[in-house]
Amino acid sequence: MNKRLFSIGLALVLGAGYALIAVSQVRPDVLVKQRQAVMTLQNKYVSGQLRPMAQGKIPYDANVAARNAGYLDALSQMPWDGFAPSTKDVKSRALPAVFSDTAKFKEAQDRFRGEVGKLVAATKGGDEAAVKAQILAVSKACDTCHDNFREKQ
Amino acid sequence: MNKRLFSIGLALVLGAGYALIAVSQVRPDVLVKQRQAVMTLQNKYVSGQLRPMAQGKIPYDANVAARNAGYLDALSQMPWDGFAPSTKDVKSRALPAVFSDTAKFKEAQDRFRGEVGKLVAATKGGDEAAVKAQILAVSKACDTCHDNFREKQ
Repeated sequence: MNKRLFSIGLALVLGAGYALIAVSQVRPDVLVKQRQAVMTLQNKYVSGQLRPMAQGKIPYDANVAARNAGYLDALSQMPWDGFAPSTKDVKSRALPAVFSDTAKFKEAQDRFRGEVGKLVAATKGGDEAAVKAQILAVSKACDTCHDNFREKQ
Repeated sequence: MNKRLFSIGLALVLGAGYALIAVSQVRPDVLVKQRQAVMTLQNKYVSGQLRPMAQGKIPYDANVAARNAGYLDALSQMPWDGFAPSTKDVKSRALPAVFSDTAKFKEAQDRFRGEVGKLVAATKGGDEAAVKAQILAVSKACDTCHDNFREKQ
């Protein structure tokens, strides 16, 4: 039994070791490039398509709204491991608060993820006004996080 | 009735017009940046995580495999509208065949999408060997498309 527990413990330690190696092998500049790629795509689907739809600047298309909500559901999970401490000194628009106020940064991520989840649900409900309102809520969650954690241009 | 048909026809024409305006408003260099962002992320999840798992270079993690398969299901739909004819002269690694042999390019996209779909199904089945084999099939579909449509470095 002790031997079995030891084996399990050893496997966990080795597993954790492997995972750490896998993460630490990604160069900081690559991590930054990857997280910026996610932002580029979120911008494509929110600022380029969903928000103008919600604002009546382009016609509302329920299929595009649902498709983009699904894309955002995946995209909104992707950037965060790219803000690793190893990237602190890589040139980007990430403010120092990303690395110093990690609890508030996590809160902003969770808020954004929550709004995206509500958008996915709204697009399934089929109420155009509700979808449009939720698109603007997602867009606002982007802005709030950028206000606190991204350098102004 | 004729009046109604005319109204529907007019709405379609106006709708198409709006859609064309929306697409043509995106600058060619932005379209290239967006499609390259998708490739960066597909590379993160395939070459950086799934393929080394399938090759036994890092430990297999069924949860990561399923999560990444879901990400790829979304990502693999995103790049194609970025290969618009307007981007033909923007500097990138896209070969002229992307714009001249559109049928073959579409076939390569569909093949890749199909392999990703099979990967999503495999990760739901829970058979590690099947998932690993399908990861390599996805990776091969990436390579085949790159061989024909992307400039060698």
